[in-house]
Amino acid sequence: MERIYLDNNATTMIDPEVFKVMEPFLKDKFGNPNSLHSFGTEVHKDMIKALDQLYAGINASDESDIIINSCATEGNNTVLKGIYFDFIQNSDKKHIITSQIEHPAVSHTINFLESLGTKVTRLPVSPEGLITPDSLKEAIIKDETALVSIMWANNETGLINPVKELAKIAHENGALFHTDAVQAIGKVKVDVQDTEVDFLTFSAHKFHGPKGVGGLYIRENLELTPLFHGGEQMAGKRAGTVNVPGMVAMGYAMELATSTEALEYENKFVRSLRDRLEDVINSLDDTIVIGDRNYRTPNTILASFKGIEGESFLWDLNQNGIAASTGSACSSEDLEADPTFVAMSIDADLAHTGVRFSLSRFNTEDEIDRVIEVVKKSVKRLREISSTYVKGE
Amino acid sequence: MERIYLDNNATTMIDPEVFKVMEPFLKDKFGNPNSLHSFGTEVHKDMIKALDQLYAGINASDESDIIINSCATEGNNTVLKGIYFDFIQNSDKKHIITSQIEHPAVSHTINFLESLGTKVTRLPVSPEGLITPDSLKEAIIKDETALVSIMWANNETGLINPVKELAKIAHENGALFHTDAVQAIGKVKVDVQDTEVDFLTFSAHKFHGPKGVGGLYIRENLELTPLFHGGEQMAGKRAGTVNVPGMVAMGYAMELATSTEALEYENKFVRSLRDRLEDVINSLDDTIVIGDRNYRTPNTILASFKGIEGESFLWDLNQNGIAASTGSACSSEDLEADPTFVAMSIDADLAHTGVRFSLSRFNTEDEIDRVIEVVKKSVKRLREISSTYVKGE
Repeated sequence: MERIYLDNNATTMIDPEVFKVMEPFLKDKFGNPNSLHSFGTEVHKDMIKALDQLYAGINASDESDIIINSCATEGNNTVLKGIYFDFIQNSDKKHIITSQIEHPAVSHTINFLESLGTKVTRLPVSPEGLITPDSLKEAIIKDETALVSIMWANNETGLINPVKELAKIAHENGALFHTDAVQAIGKVKVDVQDTEVDFLTFSAHKFHGPKGVGGLYIRENLELTPLFHGGEQMAGKRAGTVNVPGMVAMGYAMELATSTEALEYENKFVRSLRDRLEDVINSLDDTIVIGDRNYRTPNTILASFKGIEGESFLWDLNQNGIAASTGSACSSEDLEADPTFVAMSIDADLAHTGVRFSLSRFNTEDEIDRVIEVVKKSVKRLREISSTYVKGE
Repeated sequence: MERIYLDNNATTMIDPEVFKVMEPFLKDKFGNPNSLHSFGTEVHKDMIKALDQLYAGINASDESDIIINSCATEGNNTVLKGIYFDFIQNSDKKHIITSQIEHPAVSHTINFLESLGTKVTRLPVSPEGLITPDSLKEAIIKDETALVSIMWANNETGLINPVKELAKIAHENGALFHTDAVQAIGKVKVDVQDTEVDFLTFSAHKFHGPKGVGGLYIRENLELTPLFHGGEQMAGKRAGTVNVPGMVAMGYAMELATSTEALEYENKFVRSLRDRLEDVINSLDDTIVIGDRNYRTPNTILASFKGIEGESFLWDLNQNGIAASTGSACSSEDLEADPTFVAMSIDADLAHTGVRFSLSRFNTEDEIDRVIEVVKKSVKRLREISSTYVKGE
């Protein structure tokens, strides 16, 4: 059975073209870039090219930094713990504002900082599932708030926060602005100059690069206590032998994901596939799709099918070769209610019936047609055997 | 020109057999292991196999943990900062003992902890270049020393510390014992049960695995505040999507590097190549090789050639296709005197003439023969043009 992968918010396939670019660095070009001999120096031009691709991908200025690290979790921990050491512990700015719908890499780290004495405000989402500028304005405390950390796009719903306005409010009040852009890169235009971002994190494996490599953008003139102390790699901002194959692959993956053509393809073709599937889901009885599709990344649907447990549906899809998710893969083991559902005041029953479909540029019309057939049949069948489903109630 | 790579303490070539094992996970087997569908679950058996290989490689008990992370720098930062949060900040144990010859991943991290109020003792090396049990006994303070952190083998000299005795002394005094074993794996037998290690760090790219993946051993029943807060990966001990290709590759690289046959090959054949080169270096006028070869990893020579700057020699070797090092690649950019030379009270002149040759199982007799010819000619030529060299003075 041909399998269909619709779980691209969890991880993506490495683009075969990206693998080709990476492969030589897993073979002959294995030198440590800090070494002075030819094995070390021969990789420098490829690293510079990768950096150029990363800078271009998010429109970073030459004066700012992009730190190559191991993943967005690392980047998020670097920013939040750096802010702790640089501000919370040593200045009057002891307040962090975040949201109720952050990825655990942000929310759990902030919980930890709270246990160390950081004051934390967690903004709720609006009925539309978004973090609003007004709620930030209300919560921010001039010269006391050190950092505002709000994700660019949500991993579960795909809903895109108004980060441009949020960042502006942070700056107007003397706070720095961090955004976890893991779910935004390659789906919407990310421009760190147009949006006044101070720190931005991303992970290659979310945009068809390899696992184990990510990036942290740091605006010019900002310093941050590093998470990894050690050697002088990344100008002392992130010690450890650079993952050259990963870096080169991430650079090319960024270029492929963020070119004008790529974003147009994502926003026209991938969106059209997503909408086609979503229209069918909406046409079934007693289903909800979370969030206005115009405010979502073009690849994501978080849907709820009354009377059907998310896990059962997932299992059924999987039996038919279709990979979807019940929510963030990072928390799928604990089977808790989706925090976004909770934040959006969607009742507990529905919260347990959420299924996420997340597409990519590698999906085809034929695949989506097959998914539509399977979803229709599966919903019908699972409701027939459901002990809780009563139509329209 | 065929190049010869003798800088294996900086990084190693990925074993082609390891690449073969890794490759499918960079292609079709790209699932996120936390996902519940077949793309996610199909990689579990390979991850378990990799863990088994890692456990076997260092003889870890089933009850202990091996955390997959991004490199030994991460592992070292995890241990040291974890100890800071768990002991230094919250208990009467505010003292850490380390050595003067640690890798920057340990020494710079400890410098940072010192700036936060940690009491630090840095043990000097003996005239033989080793950290002695007696010096530790003298420095350790019962119920005040939280951690002893001493590297298993030194990256620059290859000298092997008496970690078994050191760990025992730590435990007798109520302290935990951490060792950076980056330079030991695959060169000497590393057994975390025979040696009472509590925390041990390693990095795949030092034993013919890929860059960007490493491991942290944590003895059973020990908890450590994580460096990466976030998702529930690694049972909450290290958040972030697991680098499955890296993990699988590291497991196999560990097996290949630590089997009885591999360690025998390293200690017979690689050692014989090393000794052959070392004998020739010793036979030249006015040269020193640092440390008794019987106390060194079998692959390493750190030699000093009077009257020849390390950088000039390195350049000459590189022109002849030979890759060596002037010391740790992690600090090669700042061109400072080798800290081991300094600690061993070797005078500043000699400290600037150190060249490190580090071999691997991929080196051949023919290669070493060519290196010997080049070294002889190069030393002669560089001394002829040296402004400082006077024979035998």
